[in-house]
Amino acid sequence: MHIGMVGLGRMGAGMARRLMDKGLSCVVYDPQEDAVARLVADGAVGAASLAELVERLPRPRAVWLMVPASLVDGVLDQLAPQLDADDVVIDGGNSCYHDDIRRAKALADRGVHYLDVGTSGGVHGQARGYCLMIGGDAAAVGRLDPVFAALAPGRDAAPPTPGRGNGNGNSNGAGTDTSTGTGTAEHGYLHCGPAGAGHFVKMVHNGIEYGIMQAYAEGFNLLRHANVGKGSHAADAETAPMRDPQLYQYDMDLPEIAELWRRGSVIGSWLLDLTARAFQADPGLDGYAGRVSDSGEGRWTLHAAIDEGVPVPVLSAALFERFQSRGNAEFANKVLSAMRKGFGGHEEPRTEINHPS
Amino acid sequence: MHIGMVGLGRMGAGMARRLMDKGLSCVVYDPQEDAVARLVADGAVGAASLAELVERLPRPRAVWLMVPASLVDGVLDQLAPQLDADDVVIDGGNSCYHDDIRRAKALADRGVHYLDVGTSGGVHGQARGYCLMIGGDAAAVGRLDPVFAALAPGRDAAPPTPGRGNGNGNSNGAGTDTSTGTGTAEHGYLHCGPAGAGHFVKMVHNGIEYGIMQAYAEGFNLLRHANVGKGSHAADAETAPMRDPQLYQYDMDLPEIAELWRRGSVIGSWLLDLTARAFQADPGLDGYAGRVSDSGEGRWTLHAAIDEGVPVPVLSAALFERFQSRGNAEFANKVLSAMRKGFGGHEEPRTEINHPS
Amino acid sequence: MHIGMVGLGRMGAGMARRLMDKGLSCVVYDPQEDAVARLVADGAVGAASLAELVERLPRPRAVWLMVPASLVDGVLDQLAPQLDADDVVIDGGNSCYHDDIRRAKALADRGVHYLDVGTSGGVHGQARGYCLMIGGDAAAVGRLDPVFAALAPGRDAAPPTPGRGNGNGNSNGAGTDTSTGTGTAEHGYLHCGPAGAGHFVKMVHNGIEYGIMQAYAEGFNLLRHANVGKGSHAADAETAPMRDPQLYQYDMDLPEIAELWRRGSVIGSWLLDLTARAFQADPGLDGYAGRVSDSGEGRWTLHAAIDEGVPVPVLSAALFERFQSRGNAEFANKVLSAMRKGFGGHEEPRTEINHPS
Amino acid sequence: MHIGMVGLGRMGAGMARRLMDKGLSCVVYDPQEDAVARLVADGAVGAASLAELVERLPRPRAVWLMVPASLVDGVLDQLAPQLDADDVVIDGGNSCYHDDIRRAKALADRGVHYLDVGTSGGVHGQARGYCLMIGGDAAAVGRLDPVFAALAPGRDAAPPTPGRGNGNGNSNGAGTDTSTGTGTAEHGYLHCGPAGAGHFVKMVHNGIEYGIMQAYAEGFNLLRHANVGKGSHAADAETAPMRDPQLYQYDMDLPEIAELWRRGSVIGSWLLDLTARAFQADPGLDGYAGRVSDSGEGRWTLHAAIDEGVPVPVLSAALFERFQSRGNAEFANKVLSAMRKGFGGHEEPRTEINHPS
Repeated sequence: MHIGMVGLGRMGAGMARRLMDKGLSCVVYDPQEDAVARLVADGAVGAASLAELVERLPRPRAVWLMVPASLVDGVLDQLAPQLDADDVVIDGGNSCYHDDIRRAKALADRGVHYLDVGTSGGVHGQARGYCLMIGGDAAAVGRLDPVFAALAPGRDAAPPTPGRGNGNGNSNGAGTDTSTGTGTAEHGYLHCGPAGAGHFVKMVHNGIEYGIMQAYAEGFNLLRHANVGKGSHAADAETAPMRDPQLYQYDMDLPEIAELWRRGSVIGSWLLDLTARAFQADPGLDGYAGRVSDSGEGRWTLHAAIDEGVPVPVLSAALFERFQSRGNAEFANKVLSAMRKGFGGHEEPRTEINHPS
Repeated sequence: MHIGMVGLGRMGAGMARRLMDKGLSCVVYDPQEDAVARLVADGAVGAASLAELVERLPRPRAVWLMVPASLVDGVLDQLAPQLDADDVVIDGGNSCYHDDIRRAKALADRGVHYLDVGTSGGVHGQARGYCLMIGGDAAAVGRLDPVFAALAPGRDAAPPTPGRGNGNGNSNGAGTDTSTGTGTAEHGYLHCGPAGAGHFVKMVHNGIEYGIMQAYAEGFNLLRHANVGKGSHAADAETAPMRDPQLYQYDMDLPEIAELWRRGSVIGSWLLDLTARAFQADPGLDGYAGRVSDSGEGRWTLHAAIDEGVPVPVLSAALFERFQSRGNAEFANKVLSAMRKGFGGHEEPRTEINHPS
Repeated sequence: MHIGMVGLGRMGAGMARRLMDKGLSCVVYDPQEDAVARLVADGAVGAASLAELVERLPRPRAVWLMVPASLVDGVLDQLAPQLDADDVVIDGGNSCYHDDIRRAKALADRGVHYLDVGTSGGVHGQARGYCLMIGGDAAAVGRLDPVFAALAPGRDAAPPTPGRGNGNGNSNGAGTDTSTGTGTAEHGYLHCGPAGAGHFVKMVHNGIEYGIMQAYAEGFNLLRHANVGKGSHAADAETAPMRDPQLYQYDMDLPEIAELWRRGSVIGSWLLDLTARAFQADPGLDGYAGRVSDSGEGRWTLHAAIDEGVPVPVLSAALFERFQSRGNAEFANKVLSAMRKGFGGHEEPRTEINHPS
Repeated sequence: MHIGMVGLGRMGAGMARRLMDKGLSCVVYDPQEDAVARLVADGAVGAASLAELVERLPRPRAVWLMVPASLVDGVLDQLAPQLDADDVVIDGGNSCYHDDIRRAKALADRGVHYLDVGTSGGVHGQARGYCLMIGGDAAAVGRLDPVFAALAPGRDAAPPTPGRGNGNGNSNGAGTDTSTGTGTAEHGYLHCGPAGAGHFVKMVHNGIEYGIMQAYAEGFNLLRHANVGKGSHAADAETAPMRDPQLYQYDMDLPEIAELWRRGSVIGSWLLDLTARAFQADPGLDGYAGRVSDSGEGRWTLHAAIDEGVPVPVLSAALFERFQSRGNAEFANKVLSAMRKGFGGHEEPRTEINHPS
């Protein structure tokens, strides 16, 4: 089976390599010529333009886009006129599912199928496999099944869930046969529903990811400050005196605690594995400034929650912490200081209570 | 009636002056001699020591402490041995109610009454009157009624609540006659319950204050950033592109909006009045750094909520924003950045999206 | 000056009456004939249809819509073709500002001015005046100045902010002369900016309102449960034992405390006044089930905050509490219970810890 | 090596069995005679009382308590007088670390060592091993090393963290040799610091656990309501109309999505494995009411965060959701409804917007 891959950054290049490792043929294109050249060296057919990529793919074609979300519409504008009825375009990036619904409709008018595939796994996916959340019409999803099966981690990537079917499973693309529990989910890919469903599930996935990351971050921050009782605290009217400094005398070894929790604890996870690696490489995380980006899905998750009327206090707190980390609450805090000055004559503190380390 | 006032800072001095304006006699003490001298110039009897203050008060004495919470126990250690049975000590500062329960018990063993009086009103209280939340035994509260009535703002400070009694009221210290609705609450003071009840109610009052302040602060911050669509936004994989910049083109005039909301809106309040003043004096709040103190009650409110099993998402968020404003989330944010680097190879952003102003 | 009023519910009828009290002439229309009749009895000119309303207004016309946000577009579809160049339509309801931008543009193509006017004050506005947040083009805003001045509460509705101008002010519709501080904001109305600015400011106003309300609600809930230490607590592995029941023995009198805080405290506000009235009428609030609606602006405030990248932990928590109050977290809680069963064999508790009252 | 095990519930019995499987000898006691009998059948030495347990252990003794936190002090009161200098008592339950500090000091006066060991792993620990977070003096910790090593999951329970030492490791109880990265953390146990440090780390672990659980719960709830656009929505002034129902037409298959995310996604974890099992057994989670307990550590985590001045918006939100799930926000919500009635005449909604499933 052949697949065209457009966009050969960290994600796209890794996916193309994994597909070729599994025996599929890739035609690849990227505006960066050396990115194309590296893939060609690994066995891909290179293309110098979108037109050439289209030309070199057998019909019906399958073109996988792995480009920043903000560029997808531009690429589609160029690509769509060159495609024929029954071709499939896959957006494997981080598009908002609103856009998928619009695009699928527009392309369907021309007989072209559009699939939205939320792709998780990051830079480790080439080796571990990618978790694929798929939206779009079932026929196109079924046709691409070998591609999805090659990209996905496969059944052995996790121990079986007790009670799910006979353990053989299948990979026919249906994905939702819960009566036997033998769908494709156990292999790491799933047809989640019509257009947009894939990116909707990926969006929520990333919302959860933000929440989990923030939970760990808060916990490690608490451990980091567990020696705050060793600091000196002025007794004045502006600062809350510490009532029980003797309870906060611990110098915690965070790298060891991260490593510890990886075995047997309730909070073991892949994100914790990565945290342990980060602490191993940089025990004080001194190489980081603590300015945290957010890349769209976290925001869209909140938008969806608000529209649904579903409370998401943890997912929103996690997003807002990222906004905070970039200084966007500064004016709000000035308003607070101005009010305090107004009713109590309070001056702002010079510095925070120091902690010893 | 005579009252001893210990602690002549912003609050204590103002209260002594208000008491004298209302015809009560004050004996005052503060370690700062000039603070005593200023009050003496205004008609108070000065004392050069706690012992002198005790000596100059007629029995049974009433000694009001208006000192930082962290110093109250020290003052009581000195003061208590000099008091006689039936004397009353009032802690008008911001003690934790836990301490009130302990102190009331210890002093009761010696026949001395201890009242905890949460005092709101800030530096404006001398003119506006102080809102007094009183805990302790009813007999002592009743005896101090003239003091409370003098300090409190009085009935005319707010329009009557429809349906409350005959409009005459009384001020006999009972405070809880809801059948007729003619208690002291309408005058701005209330006996809330046994030892600690006054500071408990004041604690919750301050917790609410934090929440209200934060609500305004967030709202003004939102208005401040309503022109974010005018900024330039790079399209890269690290930054969520702004979907609809045309919706965020407003340059809002915050001082005028603060002034506007003071009349007729649902969110009018004294805190908004103060905010309007702050904007009038410094329209961009450039004189503030945005480092916000917290002074105990906000923390104790959360402790109480946790103990009670009562959810307080707003009150906690307000407190945590203050912690944030002082940089205490920095390490947590480094953990987030380290994780993002780990799974996605993401680098930290150099700077936040600029907004034009 | 003449104004047409479409929509004679609680808000529209009160506004028409206030306008007539101030000497303006109103032509009124509502699909409910008796609503029209009541206004006619009070001096308005009635109309049996939109067409009749348009016909009875002198040119250039001013038509104020006071209808549910979801009906505005339908009314405009009917109304717009009947209007002439230079007429003004005002949407005084709770539209999303996105819609204002779209409508203003569409109507401008026909020479018709569209103003969005966020209106606060609720059912009390007829007597107190309405706080008006105005968006649209300046010429139309200026022409409507007598209308806004009549609806607004006026300068005396709040004490002057120290330092604002000479105290005379004006009402020329400029609204933003901060150098002298004599704009219309002091009268309770303000031209906030171009199309959508009025409803944007109203949206944020309501977001703040949600936050303030929730702060009070959490505080009173804390006071309500301050006697939780009196309850009996089983000592089992599923329930956190209460460490210090002796600290939670207070039976707080909420109606009196609400009344108390109205005088002299930092947290006095109109919302607190209303809370005191509610407690006066129903001390235990037994007439309420605790299912709380949200009406759009709270949601849009969050959408805007997310788009702006501005953290709003308090405003979001307030909204989510309303979602919670209507049962929308139920499935999330089932997921938690299922996880706890999975890792710890924990059964769900039968009932919450009882508190005595 | 011999160890006494007091408390043979789910946790204690599993730990005793794991110790015996690894070749250690157990003397066991529980007030439930049949619990003792079952362990005796599996090879333990039974004791009919604490005294008998003490008597049957060789000196210096090691007694592990695995009882509800609220009972530990009672057991210690009985046990301590029977112990001799150099004996070790281990509290493996969920005590607050405040209590550990107090107990360690009290027992040290008698020459008895007290270790606090936070134990994670739940009912699966017998097979998977228990993650052990240890506080107390180093000598006692070192002596117990064979016990900890037997209970812990061991190095193979997780893939090695790149860059940690030579891969051989040791288990000498030092636990903190980060220069070589060959401490005990890689085996799943760690001496975290002096008295209380073990339960402090366990406390934070559970705080994180609450946060992670809540993140998943909110995400699945969002997916569950992704079909809300299919419902019917009345257009009235009390309900926010749904702007874009066409965006919420997805019927998501939650059991399959949970299974999907277990392979290759960024959010894979043991808690997700358990969630997938729960969905497999009960796809709609109809067997749960959604009342969620909290068992102390989540509360203490917040107390510690407040004392440290560290913001924990996610950990607090997770705890407050549990309070909510048990109905403890009801009165707060009544306050909101009463206010809305007060300013807008709003009635409470009868029921939430229905969603189709």
